[in-house]
Amino acid sequence: MAKKTEQITGNMLIAQSGGPTMVINQSLIGAVLEAKKHKNIKGIYGSLHGIQGILKEEFIDLRKESVSNLEAVAQTPSSALGSVRKKPKPEDCVKLFAVMKKYNIRFFFYIGGNDSAETTHIVNEEAKKAKYELRCFHIPKTIDNDLRENDHTPGFASGAKFVAMAFMGDNLDNRALQGVKINVVMGRHAGFLTAAAALARVYPDDGPHLIYLPERVFSMDKFARDVKRVFKKHGRCVVAVSEGISDKDGTPIAALLTAEVEVDSHGNVQLSGSGALGDRLSDYIKNKTQISRVRADTFGYLQRSFPGIASKVDAKEARETGALAVKLAATKDTDGSIAIKRKAGKKYAVTYKRVPLKNVAKETRHMPDSFISKAGNDVTRAFINYAKPLVGELPKIGRFKGVRVKKK
Amino acid sequence: MAKKTEQITGNMLIAQSGGPTMVINQSLIGAVLEAKKHKNIKGIYGSLHGIQGILKEEFIDLRKESVSNLEAVAQTPSSALGSVRKKPKPEDCVKLFAVMKKYNIRFFFYIGGNDSAETTHIVNEEAKKAKYELRCFHIPKTIDNDLRENDHTPGFASGAKFVAMAFMGDNLDNRALQGVKINVVMGRHAGFLTAAAALARVYPDDGPHLIYLPERVFSMDKFARDVKRVFKKHGRCVVAVSEGISDKDGTPIAALLTAEVEVDSHGNVQLSGSGALGDRLSDYIKNKTQISRVRADTFGYLQRSFPGIASKVDAKEARETGALAVKLAATKDTDGSIAIKRKAGKKYAVTYKRVPLKNVAKETRHMPDSFISKAGNDVTRAFINYAKPLVGELPKIGRFKGVRVKKK
Repeated sequence: MAKKTEQITGNMLIAQSGGPTMVINQSLIGAVLEAKKHKNIKGIYGSLHGIQGILKEEFIDLRKESVSNLEAVAQTPSSALGSVRKKPKPEDCVKLFAVMKKYNIRFFFYIGGNDSAETTHIVNEEAKKAKYELRCFHIPKTIDNDLRENDHTPGFASGAKFVAMAFMGDNLDNRALQGVKINVVMGRHAGFLTAAAALARVYPDDGPHLIYLPERVFSMDKFARDVKRVFKKHGRCVVAVSEGISDKDGTPIAALLTAEVEVDSHGNVQLSGSGALGDRLSDYIKNKTQISRVRADTFGYLQRSFPGIASKVDAKEARETGALAVKLAATKDTDGSIAIKRKAGKKYAVTYKRVPLKNVAKETRHMPDSFISKAGNDVTRAFINYAKPLVGELPKIGRFKGVRVKKK
Repeated sequence: MAKKTEQITGNMLIAQSGGPTMVINQSLIGAVLEAKKHKNIKGIYGSLHGIQGILKEEFIDLRKESVSNLEAVAQTPSSALGSVRKKPKPEDCVKLFAVMKKYNIRFFFYIGGNDSAETTHIVNEEAKKAKYELRCFHIPKTIDNDLRENDHTPGFASGAKFVAMAFMGDNLDNRALQGVKINVVMGRHAGFLTAAAALARVYPDDGPHLIYLPERVFSMDKFARDVKRVFKKHGRCVVAVSEGISDKDGTPIAALLTAEVEVDSHGNVQLSGSGALGDRLSDYIKNKTQISRVRADTFGYLQRSFPGIASKVDAKEARETGALAVKLAATKDTDGSIAIKRKAGKKYAVTYKRVPLKNVAKETRHMPDSFISKAGNDVTRAFINYAKPLVGELPKIGRFKGVRVKKK
């Protein structure tokens, strides 16, 4: 628990880390606009490319940005300050505090996912050891929706909206040209984003007809049987597959395909930025069935950075988490992360809560069992009810009533 | 030349063929609503899955659809009647006319690209030979923008808008995390859609930094040199590559990668629905340079079916071409295709012109030399001026002024 403290005065540094989202800049701008309200926050600096920018002393002065420009950046996807994937070692922290001291940084905000929360936690703990007085907050973002303590995380709803829209269109494409279509969706350990494909369904026969999540063991054999069954019923089959699907030993299917795998400093295997998994699954279905038209697409980075379609709820919440972190740091708390909690009741509403850094650092959360169908190849109504209010309005999909002309 | 004819009376059959687009249903609904205005058009039937639906006598009665439902379908991407890739043989035509006669079909409209225009042309010529009186029109659509006679084709502008938006977001993603990012865009022989990536550029250092089109020979060696040069300058590099890029012998690079290739009845090699080309290019750059972070995405079918973002100009023109085809067939012309011509002058405006079927059938057009940079790895200002009014408004992209904090 962070103890309630006296206000301190000094400069603020904010940075972004990990994979971008469509609304990560909303959190950044929410934080900057809030900072301007607090007299004890003097300089408002942005570090370029996360903690790497601190080590290199590459800061921009966010007080020199006009409000209209801040608002324009808020509406823009991806990390406006640049990002990085870097876990600080103790010796890095010594350097970080030397730089922070030089610039009188007393407020530090790090916008990111579980790895970035871990970085924030390390910085916070090392600051205490070094007796460097620092207000240290993590601001959540991740399209994977896998931060503990949170009902959902900023970035997820917009990524989910993209995935749902993509499946809406792709289901229609598959309905027109038939065959089997496999779409690979981001999500290393948590299947939330892949599950969002289910929101694309409008009519009873709409795809995705099958949804495979990393929370369940993936069997190639069962996959082929599932596809055959759906194809027999509908004459076509649309499949949503998480990039993180793994075999019974926990090895990602994607990692089985390549001899060499890239690993970042947080120990994450690179899964995105390649079409290999989709192609492998597609080849497997071609070989195991008599279906001639089998295609695979990998949605890739579009899921986190496509402009102009962010969820309104997501944009609002991302901004509010950023603002609250600054407010708490400026007025009463030494450290923490902001978590989104959903209020009980029929109407969608949330509250925000400060939680200890260690509670969101490193480990991730997964889809609860109640969100996954018994057969492990679909989501439940409970998941739809959970995700729908986050994503908000989706395009209308029309379809002919289709009264048949009597055969002559 | 179709001769001006007396009006005939009978039923109308309309169908969709080839790859879907975001606005192909606008053409369909434009045609249906126009047909309702003409007393000599009695039944308005839709054939399911192109000419395959005729052979199977699978028709729906489009007079039984409410106007509000027709409008909902118009706004929906992909082919609402279903599609097919099938070139009719003379013996198929005998069957087609037997069915058409049974249902008194005297107006036939086929919405599609160059292959569908070829099908329409074959049906028209065979109908003449068989002395089966038929008004036979092709209605253009193709995201590839490769129909002869046309300034541009319905479907292209919306696909181009998707590609531009995708590159806008992906350029920001690459700016945040650096490295090299390769995106593979649809386009078998014509580079228009890949070229549209250039519309994503807002700031001088924005990607795509390199654009490779099927109109120029692709050299792996030059590609690696280009990437190295851009990376040295910007510390990052975003590349747009057409799926149809080919080597000096005209062999598609994508086809070089796989021993088995799928070919449809029009003789087209399957290039989409696989990530192999992007992965191959990505591996090549990793091996040939010292750049560690190299990623590839293949945009795939999203380019032609993503809902909710269609270009307004595209939607309007698609509807008008569909309506005009029906109007001409109902009132004065026996056959043809509708071509879009751009009016001279500063303000964007078009006219529509009936052209002979043979002029758009089979052969495709390519990017003119004036649209391609001398080095063959970018587009020109002339292309931007051409494409911008078609695509219309794109999302605003904000960026920090970024005043540096003076180093201490």
